[in-house]
Amino acid sequence: MTVTTLDDILVQLSMLPNADAAAHAAWASREPRLTKPAGALGRLEEISDWLSSWQGRHPPRLDTPRCIVFAGNHGVAARGVSAFPAEVTVQMVANFERGGAAINQLCRVFGTELSVVALDLEHPTADFTQGPAMSEAEMVAAFTTGMDAVQPETDLLCVGEMGIANTSAAAAVACGLFGGSAEDWTGRGTGVEGSAFHTKIAVVDEAVALHRGATPLEVLRRLGGRELAAMAGAVLAARLRRVPVLLDGYVCTAAAAVLEAAQPGALDHCLVAHASAEPGHRRLMERIGQRPLLDLGMRLGEASGAALAVGLVRAALACHIGMATFGEAGVSDAG
Amino acid sequence: MTVTTLDDILVQLSMLPNADAAAHAAWASREPRLTKPAGALGRLEEISDWLSSWQGRHPPRLDTPRCIVFAGNHGVAARGVSAFPAEVTVQMVANFERGGAAINQLCRVFGTELSVVALDLEHPTADFTQGPAMSEAEMVAAFTTGMDAVQPETDLLCVGEMGIANTSAAAAVACGLFGGSAEDWTGRGTGVEGSAFHTKIAVVDEAVALHRGATPLEVLRRLGGRELAAMAGAVLAARLRRVPVLLDGYVCTAAAAVLEAAQPGALDHCLVAHASAEPGHRRLMERIGQRPLLDLGMRLGEASGAALAVGLVRAALACHIGMATFGEAGVSDAG
Repeated sequence: MTVTTLDDILVQLSMLPNADAAAHAAWASREPRLTKPAGALGRLEEISDWLSSWQGRHPPRLDTPRCIVFAGNHGVAARGVSAFPAEVTVQMVANFERGGAAINQLCRVFGTELSVVALDLEHPTADFTQGPAMSEAEMVAAFTTGMDAVQPETDLLCVGEMGIANTSAAAAVACGLFGGSAEDWTGRGTGVEGSAFHTKIAVVDEAVALHRGATPLEVLRRLGGRELAAMAGAVLAARLRRVPVLLDGYVCTAAAAVLEAAQPGALDHCLVAHASAEPGHRRLMERIGQRPLLDLGMRLGEASGAALAVGLVRAALACHIGMATFGEAGVSDAG
Repeated sequence: MTVTTLDDILVQLSMLPNADAAAHAAWASREPRLTKPAGALGRLEEISDWLSSWQGRHPPRLDTPRCIVFAGNHGVAARGVSAFPAEVTVQMVANFERGGAAINQLCRVFGTELSVVALDLEHPTADFTQGPAMSEAEMVAAFTTGMDAVQPETDLLCVGEMGIANTSAAAAVACGLFGGSAEDWTGRGTGVEGSAFHTKIAVVDEAVALHRGATPLEVLRRLGGRELAAMAGAVLAARLRRVPVLLDGYVCTAAAAVLEAAQPGALDHCLVAHASAEPGHRRLMERIGQRPLLDLGMRLGEASGAALAVGLVRAALACHIGMATFGEAGVSDAG
């Protein structure tokens, strides 16, 4: 699955595999026999079905859940849209590598393997208020890096990012894909306040006006960034290998939404792990027909929400596999 | 802390210990120095603060989280208010003991020790549409069993229940405590349909009318059941020992709400783990000022929602303890 142009990505998007009907049927045969009222485990039942259907096997497994954090730098950071300086991207990548960030702790708690992919941090993308963030070659390179980062034998993939100024990119991408005003999609990110917040909205507004009318993949190239392109690539590669994906917060969902806008159904193998405190995230989830699994006011990125939801997936799997049936337990079924 | 009358319970409720200010201060000193924007972990930050403040130590620990499921039988089950026959209570207790229920899997996934306390299952409480469910001696015995079930060296307590017909008891208790109509508080429990659902509402309505005007502890005695009294006892004993508590769904929250109604602030050491699909649960949480941690459409009881939330507590603790500070990681703080 080599990709060298944006058109190659469209070709891949036109050939997406679907969920496995036999694995779903095996799930659906077992689930109602477990010792609980029908449906009483709520979305834990949806999760074990999703895991089985996309892994294409029953019982599903969770031996090697993996998490990838993509990091990128943004030319638009120079416009003062973030509460943190741009060097924090590379500093946080070092923190990930030494095990000191939130994502390291969350992956360790739930037995998830973490990898970090830094994308050409010394060369920020171009300021997208002046022109496209990336050339086609840059976008395809980042997208391909994302595709290649999905390792074989991955049972579940968590996708996330780090990149100072990338909630501005996410807002611009979301606005470019789905319309509305810059205010609708722009939030406070890491905590931008006062006049800097007004600047951030103005920057998103300028950028969207400059690149109006672009196709979804062009929106990603013009208004995104390397880590957004890489996340989209990873989500696509996971689909081609039928690996279920937990999407993280606003930036990750915005990147993935590009695929859904280009090819409806492209995110059927994904669940959004959590609702970010970034207000545009709920609007974005509505547009792509997703309901978050968790809603805990988090707004960190780093795949932290996705990694936290791995605990729910472990719990869902344990219930579906480990529970006794009514017959095994000698429990009377509903009258 | 011996309790032999309802008045003894009121005495205990008047002497509740508060959260530990020094442990909270130690948490509050560390949390803002961790490598993330202030507040970016949302409710995970609230959870690690709660754990530390109620355990009265910093760092807090999660070496021995425990879960107790209390089981009871209800005379009102004979009125046909449940989709399942009354013998399912004892059958499910056997299933818990053999490890085949959802709660067994959920406790195992997150390293929680499970105990099951069956309360005189061969003697259901009296039908509360005809008189009080329990005598004072029966209520105090069940409450004391609940208190005694909280073992020393418990870092976190999950509380839940099993009892065919006990969502009727929960609805009656909630209505008896907070007013409103039986319809406001009565849901479908394990899945009661059609005319049986109308019967259930009518039964709750009759019961509340018969016992109108009772004090909170009298509401528990007259409209509750042994497992509800035991849960209230366990929640009180946990408070007296400063053990943080995860409340489960509707029945558990209704039992605990009796303490809050009798003594405002009595549930300050508790978090409601999840929003049950039982519609009265949200109304009840509003009345006692709680917001659920999870909202996954579950309605199983058995402490399943509480046990699932132990994963969130483990994650919160890992982040607070394990993350590097800005200084340690050499990451620039917000400008």
